[in-house]
This record gives sequence, structure tokens and C-alpha cells, in this order.
Amino acid sequence: MTTTTTRTSRRGLGGGLRATSKVLPEHARAHNRSLVLQHLFHEGPTSRAGLSRSTGLTRVTVSDLVGVLLAEGLVEELGTQPGRRVGKPAILVGMRTDAYQIVGLDLSDDTVLRGAVLTLTGEAVDRQVLPVDGRRGQDLVDLLARFARRLVASATRPVIGIGVGSPGVVDDTGRVVEAPNVEWSDLPLAALLTDRLGLPVHVANDANSAALAEYTYGGGGDSMIVLTVGKGVGAGVMVDGARVHGAGDAAGELGHVTVVEEGGQPCACGRRGCLETVLSAPALRRATDGLDAHEAEAVLADVGRTLGKTLAPVVGALNLGEVILAGPPELLAEPLRTAALETITARTMPATSAGLDLRMAALDDDVVLAGAAVLVLGAQLGVS
Amino acid sequence: MTTTTTRTSRRGLGGGLRATSKVLPEHARAHNRSLVLQHLFHEGPTSRAGLSRSTGLTRVTVSDLVGVLLAEGLVEELGTQPGRRVGKPAILVGMRTDAYQIVGLDLSDDTVLRGAVLTLTGEAVDRQVLPVDGRRGQDLVDLLARFARRLVASATRPVIGIGVGSPGVVDDTGRVVEAPNVEWSDLPLAALLTDRLGLPVHVANDANSAALAEYTYGGGGDSMIVLTVGKGVGAGVMVDGARVHGAGDAAGELGHVTVVEEGGQPCACGRRGCLETVLSAPALRRATDGLDAHEAEAVLADVGRTLGKTLAPVVGALNLGEVILAGPPELLAEPLRTAALETITARTMPATSAGLDLRMAALDDDVVLAGAAVLVLGAQLGVS
Repeated sequence: MTTTTTRTSRRGLGGGLRATSKVLPEHARAHNRSLVLQHLFHEGPTSRAGLSRSTGLTRVTVSDLVGVLLAEGLVEELGTQPGRRVGKPAILVGMRTDAYQIVGLDLSDDTVLRGAVLTLTGEAVDRQVLPVDGRRGQDLVDLLARFARRLVASATRPVIGIGVGSPGVVDDTGRVVEAPNVEWSDLPLAALLTDRLGLPVHVANDANSAALAEYTYGGGGDSMIVLTVGKGVGAGVMVDGARVHGAGDAAGELGHVTVVEEGGQPCACGRRGCLETVLSAPALRRATDGLDAHEAEAVLADVGRTLGKTLAPVVGALNLGEVILAGPPELLAEPLRTAALETITARTMPATSAGLDLRMAALDDDVVLAGAAVLVLGAQLGVS
Repeated sequence: MTTTTTRTSRRGLGGGLRATSKVLPEHARAHNRSLVLQHLFHEGPTSRAGLSRSTGLTRVTVSDLVGVLLAEGLVEELGTQPGRRVGKPAILVGMRTDAYQIVGLDLSDDTVLRGAVLTLTGEAVDRQVLPVDGRRGQDLVDLLARFARRLVASATRPVIGIGVGSPGVVDDTGRVVEAPNVEWSDLPLAALLTDRLGLPVHVANDANSAALAEYTYGGGGDSMIVLTVGKGVGAGVMVDGARVHGAGDAAGELGHVTVVEEGGQPCACGRRGCLETVLSAPALRRATDGLDAHEAEAVLADVGRTLGKTLAPVVGALNLGEVILAGPPELLAEPLRTAALETITARTMPATSAGLDLRMAALDDDVVLAGAAVLVLGAQLGVS
């Protein structure tokens, strides 16, 4: 799990600042600090002069910032730059991705809480699982707080924050607007946990977390959709380098779009024939159960075509560069993946589909946990 | 055509600055200037003290900025605030939306160029039309430059820039990547026209311009899609307050998504059964030609259902708050509009469809011209 691509979101270029909040000196300092960390995070060790060139900040500003970051233990000096021949040897500065840790929590499975202690680069160094035993509502909040405390205690470095990938509709402040499966409604989960744990807690929808993880750690591009396929089907959308929230914070509810015209199966949402009724892992397993390999492939390809038909308008409207499937590869990879891609290609213009990639997630089972870490990285260090 | 709503895009709040470009003092000045203009543009006349309160800038900074804007003629003093009882009477400052003008050009019709001189609030004060007479390629660029020069000459105030709504795929720099109908390919239209006319020229796709216009002048929300229905079908998407560009600058190609499963009509794009083959104005006229009112309504409702099926995954994935139809109301309003809304509602979760509005565009025929004005407002004054 490494970081490879440079993030220069289109929204951040050119005009840059949006005219909706003032620029105070402390904002500029925090922004410049993020710039330096962002560069070191994505590009690796760099000299102070190099940081000055790439960020456009003066050398004095860079030196001051690096001094503060050294004192905080967030960066370290790594010896001199190889191959440099003239002048004073330049000392490389690198981000200490092991200096702090993040606790991530994944609530996307309704039978167990999954948790991990992660490095700043999203690698899980300690994974833990706790059975939910049917807990919901306030009981589940209590269990979650105990589980988080246990994970924080098992961290081997100071924890800079806790990220949570939750089911349901979650707003910008980490309030769970609605998550019927766990009986949460209008629950200020981030605030409650912050209060109990004494650490910054950030909460987002689980599929949205997965999209953040693929974007930050999985090499995902600026315009993409991540479909999480498990017990249900969720989606997280990134557009031009920003996570899509939607008018009511409910972006990504693609699993409950009707895709079966007649005789659709009943869905958990109370309606019939939703994408989830054909694409969820249990649905795919039921549909292929007892079939020989050839028959099973035909069934999976057929679901792939249904998925392609559903995604074609989304890909066309947004000109997405990638569609990423996160879930069991034995169900989602060939032939489902190829059938979906062929269907999208056939149903959209070449200008839309020419550069389209439809692939499996890079991060497997850790995708929601890693996304929870990205929430914390972004909020606490300004790195995305 | 008035401005009513406050724009506080979600992306501009909270974190605010994105860590991808540095903050220089001149950026902060330009940003603060935009803040003041943005407030006056959307909220109307305000005292210096009021500007200081709403922007968070110090009174000294606000006074300095207002001084510069007064000298430029962009704002004016408007007498004292009514109803104020204590202390020195506060002088209201208002944006002079008539101090400068914008030239807008609409190339979405393939038989005529439409142009207008517009106020800063997007009102067309002078409209002109020029037959294209089959011109394409370089000839069309020449014609466009002459037309723009004529419009600039007819302006009654200094022109701050020229905005162009063009067919085809247009990138961030105003380069037309591809517009087959007019035989433009990889054409740096904004740069060419800027060079010839000596004024800033900004170019965007016509449907994208329409989306900007509905967002800025038409009361459109932060998350919406505008469908332009004329000879063809285009779309512009706003997500969380930002225009969607897409991975290859081709966002909005919803008109060329396949919607007819079998026996679809041939489309201008060379494929069959695209949304455009059933929803374009000529297609709707052909389909209802010679039918009685009752039969025609059934046909239009059927197209509305097809549109709804196509839009449901887009609305679900993005949690759009509005779908806006720009085009002939006699074709697009009832029963097509209602059928589309009912279909989207039936095919998405209540969390998605509960707040959804599907309505006709507020700006009618001027929508692309007004959007061209928004391009200029944003780029030249930082107002959006």
C-alpha cells in the first residue's frame, strides 16, 4: 500500500481560493503547512530548496515550517541528497509516517465491528474484530466507544485521531442523519465519540470512505465511483478531485436504484428490484449456487450488463475516468467486470468511454478502514 | 432576472483552502476583493461595517478595498442605511452592476450565432443574431470574431470580457477539444479570440454554461443537472456548488447515452437509440406530429418516463437536489416533466428523491448567453 500519484486537484488550480471565507494569517500558515506535508506525503523526501520550488513558498517560510514540523516529530532529516555535486549538500526532509498513528473503524458489516491501528500511509499495523451481537442504537454507540478505546490503547505511537466509516447518510459534521439498519437517526456520532474519547473523531459514510481510500492510497483518479459490494451495495463518488456529498448528504445511494423492470426481488429498503437485489454478495451467491462454471459465468455476465446499464448515465453525465469495484473478486472480477465495461462502452459516446477504466479496488478488505484514516489525515494534517 | 440566493458553497466552508497552491499576499488581496464583491452581488447594498461583519475582514481592510472599488467604478455609495438610530449614519455601498458590461455568445444553434450585451447581473440589454450560412472550421472562427467585435462596439459601458457557450468538449483553458458539428478539433478558441479582440475571452460547453446560469441567476441549488433540449440534448452538472468537468472535460454527454433497447433511431453521433433520438426538440415534434392532444400527451409522458429511467442512477449517485429542463416548454413541461419526476421518485430511495425538484429553467432562451456572462464574472471579478 504505497502512495504513487501526485494530487493536483483541478479545483485547487488556477482561481484556487473560493470567495466564501476570508483568508486570515493563521489560515495562510495552516495552508502552507499543509502544502509542505502534502508534498512530502505524496512525493517523498525532498530538500528544503526543493520544497520551496515545488510549493512556491519562500525558503525562509519553508525553513520555519520544517523547523516546527521537526519539533512536532512529523518530519525528520534523512541525510544528504545523492548525486548532488556543487554547493552545500542539501539535507533531505521526509515525513515520519510512523511518528503518529490513526485508529480506523469500519461499521459496514452488520455482524462485527472491524477496527485497526493504521500508519499515516494507511497501513493497518493491528487489526481487531468485535462481534456486534445484535446491538443497535445507543448500545452500539457504547460498544463502539469501548472498542475505539481499546484500539487507542493498543497503538504504539500517539494517535492523531479516529476515523469511522458508518452505514447510512452522514453529514459534514459527522452526524449520522439516518442509518436504519443500526437504528441511528440524527445521531451526532463524531461529537459523542470525541467527547468520550478525548480525541478528534471524524465520521463518513462507509462507501464514501472507500472512495477516499482508493483516491488517496489506491491510485484512483480525480473522477471516479467506488462501488462497495458486500451484504449491500454502496457507492462513493469523487468528482474533479472532491468527494461528492449531495443535496441531502445522501450521495452514493446507487444500490437502491431500480434496475429490474418486472418481477424484481424484495429489497432491504422495502422496495423491489434495486441494484442491491442483484449485485450484493449474497444475491450473487444465491444466483450462482449449484450452477456449473459455465452457467455461473453467464449469470455473472448478465449482472455485469445490468450494472453497466445502470452506470452508463452516471459515467456519461460525469465523464468518470474510473469505476472501481470493492468486494469479493471471485464474484466481481471476470466475467462481471468485463461485461459491465463493455456495456458502458457500448452505451456511451467514445469521448466518454475512451479513457474509462473499470477495475477491482486496490485495497481489498481494508478499504473502509483506510478511508477512515484518510478522513483523519485530511482533517488533522490537511493531507488528502 | 434577479439574484436572490446566498452562495455559500459547501466546498468553500470549513477547511476552505485546498492544499494545492500557495497563498501569496496578492492572492489574499484578490480573494478578499472577491469576498466583498461576492457579498454585494448576492446580498445587495451593505454598509462597510456590515461588510466587515459578513466577510470577517477587518474594517480597515474593508475600507481600503471599498476605496479601490469606488475608484474603479465597480461600487458606489448609496446614501445612509434606513432605520438606524444611534451613532454616525452608515453609508450603504452597492455594486454598480451597470458600470461594466459583458458580451455573451451562444453557439448552440447550428444555423445562427446568438449574441448579447449583458449587464453584470446577466440581463441582456442588446440581442443580436447572425446567420451561420453553413460556415464551419476557421470560417466560423472568423465570423465569430467579427460578430463579437460588433457586439463589443454596441456596448454602452466598458466591456470586462467575452463569454462563449460552445458546442462540443471544451477544456479549462477554453480550448475546444472536439466539436464535430462545426469541424473544430483541438482549437484554442479562447486564446484565438482574446488575441484578436484584445479582451479576456472565456469559453465553456454550451450546456455547462446553461448550468452556470441557472446556478448563478436562476436560483439553482448546489447539486443539480441542467438538460438543454434543442436540436440536440446537452447536460451541465453542478455538484456541491462546483461545475463538473470530468476526467476528459467531457462531462454532460448524457444526450448520447443509449436509452432505447431495440430498434432505436440513428443518432447524429453515429450510434442508435441515444437519449437525443427521443428527447431532442425535433424528435419530440416528429413523434407528436399529427396526433390529437390526448395521443400526444401519452407520447410525451412516455418520453418523460424514459428520461426518468436514465436520470434515476445519476440522481441516486449524486443526490441531486434539482433537475432543470431548458428548452421548449410546450414539449418539456406537462406531461413530460411530471412523468420524469414520478419515474425518478419511484426508482430511487426516499432519502434521494424526497427533496428532489424537477422544473423548467428560469432563464428560457437566454440561458446559454447568461451562462457565458457567468464565465466572465467568475474569471474577471471572482463572483460566482
